[in-house]
Amino acid sequence: MKQPGHNKKAVVLLSGGLDSATVLACARAEGFDCYALSFDYGQRHRAELNASKNVAAALSVTEHKIATIDLAQFGGSALTDKAIAVPHVASEGIPVTYVPARNTVFLSFALAWAEVLKSQDIYIGVNAVDYSGYPDCRPEYIAAYETMANLATRAGVEGHKLSVHTPLINLSKAEIIRLGMRHGIDYAMTVSCYSASDEGRACGQCDSCRLRARGFADAGVPDPTQYL
Amino acid sequence: MKQPGHNKKAVVLLSGGLDSATVLACARAEGFDCYALSFDYGQRHRAELNASKNVAAALSVTEHKIATIDLAQFGGSALTDKAIAVPHVASEGIPVTYVPARNTVFLSFALAWAEVLKSQDIYIGVNAVDYSGYPDCRPEYIAAYETMANLATRAGVEGHKLSVHTPLINLSKAEIIRLGMRHGIDYAMTVSCYSASDEGRACGQCDSCRLRARGFADAGVPDPTQYL
Repeated sequence: MKQPGHNKKAVVLLSGGLDSATVLACARAEGFDCYALSFDYGQRHRAELNASKNVAAALSVTEHKIATIDLAQFGGSALTDKAIAVPHVASEGIPVTYVPARNTVFLSFALAWAEVLKSQDIYIGVNAVDYSGYPDCRPEYIAAYETMANLATRAGVEGHKLSVHTPLINLSKAEIIRLGMRHGIDYAMTVSCYSASDEGRACGQCDSCRLRARGFADAGVPDPTQYL
Repeated sequence: MKQPGHNKKAVVLLSGGLDSATVLACARAEGFDCYALSFDYGQRHRAELNASKNVAAALSVTEHKIATIDLAQFGGSALTDKAIAVPHVASEGIPVTYVPARNTVFLSFALAWAEVLKSQDIYIGVNAVDYSGYPDCRPEYIAAYETMANLATRAGVEGHKLSVHTPLINLSKAEIIRLGMRHGIDYAMTVSCYSASDEGRACGQCDSCRLRARGFADAGVPDPTQYL
């Protein structure tokens, strides 16, 4: 909880997916003025960005920035490299949909904006339960990022503590969905599919679609996703 | 030193200034194939980018990428925000030329590229002696970054150790210049000035110019800088 004098601004990483929409609702419920940050990073699933705009508007953020960054130039992921196919079956180990250092890059931009806003709070929707085997979704990674961030910035030098909040980290997908619905989120406006159409229709077959569909089933809630 | 089987590729952050040119020469002298990474980040001193191309070519890098990132959209620094003047006198504490979270953002892109290249080595020219009071130039920051990076990536999961090399961190500017000259660097092609002209001529008055000029004087070497 915020102490007296704590800056009321939080930077929230917003992808347009189910998880980050829930995180934004959590940050707002904590009383923060939310500054949502999305990325146009060469991802295949462009419908995400439209979804992020709809979510930001529906949840009344103070400001929404979409930063353009060229992660595709480094290649190495099915999400940004057209030469690598998005798989329809779960893989062993780290999957090809992993984008190298993605959360590290995203958090670094969030850190830059937080520093300018004098915000001490960054929210990110990583999840260590129903996740896809990405190294940068683990609690030990987030803890190390927070330690680094406090040494990287004015905040660290001037003694303010910067926190990286991960309200979903220990929740199952079904628990995330129930949490978001308590906050009134309409998940129909979110897009999780790695291969969504430009209109935001989901393939229903990729890892992300299957995790999401199972989440609604486990939560006992009708799935509002529009499938192809 | 590299162990047998160690990947020979290193990612080197290259600004076009004196320090990073020296770092590139160090990485090359260690036997690495160098992948130089520069940023077009809305900096005022655009001559830097031309200098980075000349340095990359002169030191025979394997590949040179210039990533465009919009740090200016967050404001907060004299180097990217035209509303903040570049000062001509040294300031107390963290100066206005500090770009929020800049090294964290730069290292994160280097980490993404290193991961794709399966490189275990990133080089950055931070310096904790003749530096300008930036929090992200301190050894404790670099150590925390390295710890985080090893948790963020496949390398960490698969047991390869990723190192962030800072060969200049404990050197004075004069020592850096002597080191670079032993490696044959022509510092005339580097640009350090925060307000350089498009042709790379230096103002001679900003913090960066004064540190650089004093370095050449202390090293007992003629200053090859072209001033306005």
